Amino acid sequence: MNGDPRPVPDTFKLADWPHNCWYAAAYDVECRRALLPRRIAGHNVVLYRRGDGRPVALENACWHRLMPLSEGQLEDDDVACGYHGLVFNAEGRCVFMPSQQTINPSARVRSYPVLERHRFVWVWPGDPALADPELVPDLHWNDDPAWAGDGGLIHLDCGYKLIVDNLMDLTHETFVHGASIGQRSIAEVPFEVTHGPSSATVTRWMVDVDPPPFWKMQLEWKRGEPAGRVDRWQIIHFQAPSTVAIDVGVAPTGTGAPEGDRSEGVNGYVLNTMTPETPRSCHYFWAFARNYSLTDQRITTLIRDGVAGVFAEDETVLAAQQEAIDDHPEKEFYNLNIDGGAMWARRLIDKLMAEEDHDERYRRSAQEAERHAGAITQVEATEADAQRLGVG
Amino acid sequence: MNGDPRPVPDTFKLADWPHNCWYAAAYDVECRRALLPRRIAGHNVVLYRRGDGRPVALENACWHRLMPLSEGQLEDDDVACGYHGLVFNAEGRCVFMPSQQTINPSARVRSYPVLERHRFVWVWPGDPALADPELVPDLHWNDDPAWAGDGGLIHLDCGYKLIVDNLMDLTHETFVHGASIGQRSIAEVPFEVTHGPSSATVTRWMVDVDPPPFWKMQLEWKRGEPAGRVDRWQIIHFQAPSTVAIDVGVAPTGTGAPEGDRSEGVNGYVLNTMTPETPRSCHYFWAFARNYSLTDQRITTLIRDGVAGVFAEDETVLAAQQEAIDDHPEKEFYNLNIDGGAMWARRLIDKLMAEEDHDERYRRSAQEAERHAGAITQVEATEADAQRLGVG
Amino acid sequence: MNGDPRPVPDTFKLADWPHNCWYAAAYDVECRRALLPRRIAGHNVVLYRRGDGRPVALENACWHRLMPLSEGQLEDDDVACGYHGLVFNAEGRCVFMPSQQTINPSARVRSYPVLERHRFVWVWPGDPALADPELVPDLHWNDDPAWAGDGGLIHLDCGYKLIVDNLMDLTHETFVHGASIGQRSIAEVPFEVTHGPSSATVTRWMVDVDPPPFWKMQLEWKRGEPAGRVDRWQIIHFQAPSTVAIDVGVAPTGTGAPEGDRSEGVNGYVLNTMTPETPRSCHYFWAFARNYSLTDQRITTLIRDGVAGVFAEDETVLAAQQEAIDDHPEKEFYNLNIDGGAMWARRLIDKLMAEEDHDERYRRSAQEAERHAGAITQVEATEADAQRLGVG
Repeated sequence: MNGDPRPVPDTFKLADWPHNCWYAAAYDVECRRALLPRRIAGHNVVLYRRGDGRPVALENACWHRLMPLSEGQLEDDDVACGYHGLVFNAEGRCVFMPSQQTINPSARVRSYPVLERHRFVWVWPGDPALADPELVPDLHWNDDPAWAGDGGLIHLDCGYKLIVDNLMDLTHETFVHGASIGQRSIAEVPFEVTHGPSSATVTRWMVDVDPPPFWKMQLEWKRGEPAGRVDRWQIIHFQAPSTVAIDVGVAPTGTGAPEGDRSEGVNGYVLNTMTPETPRSCHYFWAFARNYSLTDQRITTLIRDGVAGVFAEDETVLAAQQEAIDDHPEKEFYNLNIDGGAMWARRLIDKLMAEEDHDERYRRSAQEAERHAGAITQVEATEADAQRLGVG
Repeated sequence: MNGDPRPVPDTFKLADWPHNCWYAAAYDVECRRALLPRRIAGHNVVLYRRGDGRPVALENACWHRLMPLSEGQLEDDDVACGYHGLVFNAEGRCVFMPSQQTINPSARVRSYPVLERHRFVWVWPGDPALADPELVPDLHWNDDPAWAGDGGLIHLDCGYKLIVDNLMDLTHETFVHGASIGQRSIAEVPFEVTHGPSSATVTRWMVDVDPPPFWKMQLEWKRGEPAGRVDRWQIIHFQAPSTVAIDVGVAPTGTGAPEGDRSEGVNGYVLNTMTPETPRSCHYFWAFARNYSLTDQRITTLIRDGVAGVFAEDETVLAAQQEAIDDHPEKEFYNLNIDGGAMWARRLIDKLMAEEDHDERYRRSAQEAERHAGAITQVEATEADAQRLGVG
Repeated sequence: MNGDPRPVPDTFKLADWPHNCWYAAAYDVECRRALLPRRIAGHNVVLYRRGDGRPVALENACWHRLMPLSEGQLEDDDVACGYHGLVFNAEGRCVFMPSQQTINPSARVRSYPVLERHRFVWVWPGDPALADPELVPDLHWNDDPAWAGDGGLIHLDCGYKLIVDNLMDLTHETFVHGASIGQRSIAEVPFEVTHGPSSATVTRWMVDVDPPPFWKMQLEWKRGEPAGRVDRWQIIHFQAPSTVAIDVGVAPTGTGAPEGDRSEGVNGYVLNTMTPETPRSCHYFWAFARNYSLTDQRITTLIRDGVAGVFAEDETVLAAQQEAIDDHPEKEFYNLNIDGGAMWARRLIDKLMAEEDHDERYRRSAQEAERHAGAITQVEATEADAQRLGVG
């Protein structure tokens, strides 16, 4: 990748998403023995649990007169419409109609493939025949006993791709999150982008730097002594279309972390999965998992609240960006070097779209992705940056 | 009508209304010696009374620069625009222009046929030549000295036809109004649908049932003794396009009500007339009139407040249904047996529309109505219902 | 102009504005060493001052990903984007990109011609090559040492042309501002309309009238004695497309004001310049300057607050008018005699539009303006008016 910016392929403007994939629909604790309405990838869905705990996802509109089923009542494993009392079972089949004996066998609401994994309830809005549980994104850190942490759900007023861009380029931490995790080195050091058929990885090492407040605190918690200079890493794993797991951490400089020994440091995973709601809004599920002091709830709470604070800063930025996009339909996006990861993420989304869709633009973008598959992109630090940012 | 549901004719999707008919524009007490703006059947109207009490309905936009006349002043029987002072008389003719002597004879605002009857001010938004006072819907119970009661006006965020559906099928009382007038029998017993050229009637008798709270209270007020089992009736009279008068009541079982003698019972009329405002909102005028204890204001107030509470339950349901319809433009409505009355009401609305309009869909729906005119539909109770509802 | 009203030329319906002209973007005190976002003639602009005080106007969307620059930081004379840190100088050229050495020379945001005059910062949204400082509207009274006063900025929910109409016909004062500056004479006396290639003037003298409260107060402040009958003038100067300077005042009757000697009276200029924001909203900049008691801050404050109160009355009227226009797309405007000045103002706006635009309607309207150029229109008082208004 050279220093020349180039416009983002015009698929950027298509505020769309693939349908044949699993989207996080709810945090496990949100889905209960009660009716939870939520728009998932444009589909109006009602979620609940059966008596045995298994989640159910039905279309949230009664077959009869479209009344939202979420306004009705849960009756054992079935849902009764709150207007005329029609009852639908967990498969979406109508099992009761008022004042009549015969129930039309076509009377049903759509039932979505649904499963629970890694503390999320996942829904498949596309073709049920393709709903392979193996395709659920890997966020295992979220319920692996070797890791501890917690997270939350944010409703964001922007298209889900803007969050993908945001997470794939962490240089923005320098400018948006200066008080917590940002530091100038992020925008200075080289990084590497690799990619496979449905994933992309951005790797960035900041060797021998001062730890920013968030990491200094954690390192001192773990080691019980004042923290000095550290080697810091950010390894961003993207899984198409909208899951990003970021391996982050610091270790005291000289203890061998860049060479593979992280034992002296602290390590966490920032887990992110975004579910489109509408073309201009999405559900953003996140968690932060760490691999030390596993049962210390104080640390869990402090980190969770800290990360929530950081994401609130992004929230403002992303909503402003979405408004600006709506306001400037005539404008292109341009890519900088820092967008190398985001560009691959978008190509991989386009590839999924091309498989489902015949929009010529998706196909062109996907072909470009195919052509570059497997390449490694090195992005060098620049002297100019170093000078400007006052380190160099 | 068999047990097979069928899609509602696609005129359902046409959020339109006939224009050559009288619509309630205001309750009598709302229309005063002051300027009242209201949108009637899509027309922006200003209402007021002349000095002699006669109502006036003018287009609410000054001929000169469209300023709403309702923002101006009433001057005797005329209206002065609040911007440049043009004055229009009760016929809509301009009688004063600032700074000029000659008044263009074409300077006028539209004046609508208007009359007052049954405690409502009615406006005719269509061709004035057709505005026959004989066509005002019959809601005489609202000012008949043999009846007493009161009502109100609700602004509803749904198309007026959804309220027609709601009133033509009272089985929803079981599910929406369980605490007041709902009871399971409503969804169990057979009912009969009849219809004429511009009206339809749904008749339902629940013989030998426990009275629900609302009726138990009234029966005990009238008879001064604890109420036992009753025969309950609901006779729903629809007048196209949007008036529904419901003859309701209960009498002690065995006193002959089903055979015609209601003298031992209590009887009321739920009076309803809906005026479209926009395709997605309407004015819902209602009253409840009873034929006993005519001067007992306590009963009037208790009933009026009780009915207002019931309608507030419908309000939530109907707004949710309208949102769902907007949200699912691709979805059909289906009809159950219980929709027999509503289906006829809609056909009769379509008939009025076909007379004014050449939309092919209205004509088809009207022809279907013609073909079935005069038929009687019996809807039987079903064993399945009885079992499910736990009465049988 | 005869007494026959006529429809306004249909350019009225075109809620558009010329681009090759100076629009007031901010009051001088609003534009500081900080980022001020404002939509000017449909353009999303960020305003600020350089260290040396000169104003800057840049497009308010980062070249990279459209983030509003106004959400970023001012760094000396440059702006840094708050998302990824790109920096643009006051000419709009990108001078820093994160993580890369080469800056694409095409990386820039639009920079608008901008200058400061008469206490306003003016922006030219059209072709920069045509941005001649000589074309700034004349509002010199606003910083002429022979005049004193102050003003403000109002955001109005109406198209800017509605304010032009409002200011070009002051008869509305009688009906809208009866408590302050309105008096019946305004709608009674004759007035004269003249016009040149890009300006129009409406002159109205009310000889030997009682001064309205606003003027009575000022005359008594200046002369220190109770005010009697006065000669009052309103000379409205329109400069296309949207500036109106109104020479207003009163002098004791018999002291020669109509003949040219205003020395015994009080004189002010109501300065107005409107900047379109969207087709349905605008920024309305105003001031009131007087030529007596120049250093009396009490008078400045009382007048400024009084004028602000008058404009608040217009605000309600104009927003209601805009709503009515949107609500009645099928309706024409009609012109009365009183609209003689407004009609010329609109023709001159259309002339500017015709020079930029090929919409046939603008050209027709402009041709009509050409044909009448230089004519003087006398509008006579009418007996009918006098009778109605009770003066005669």
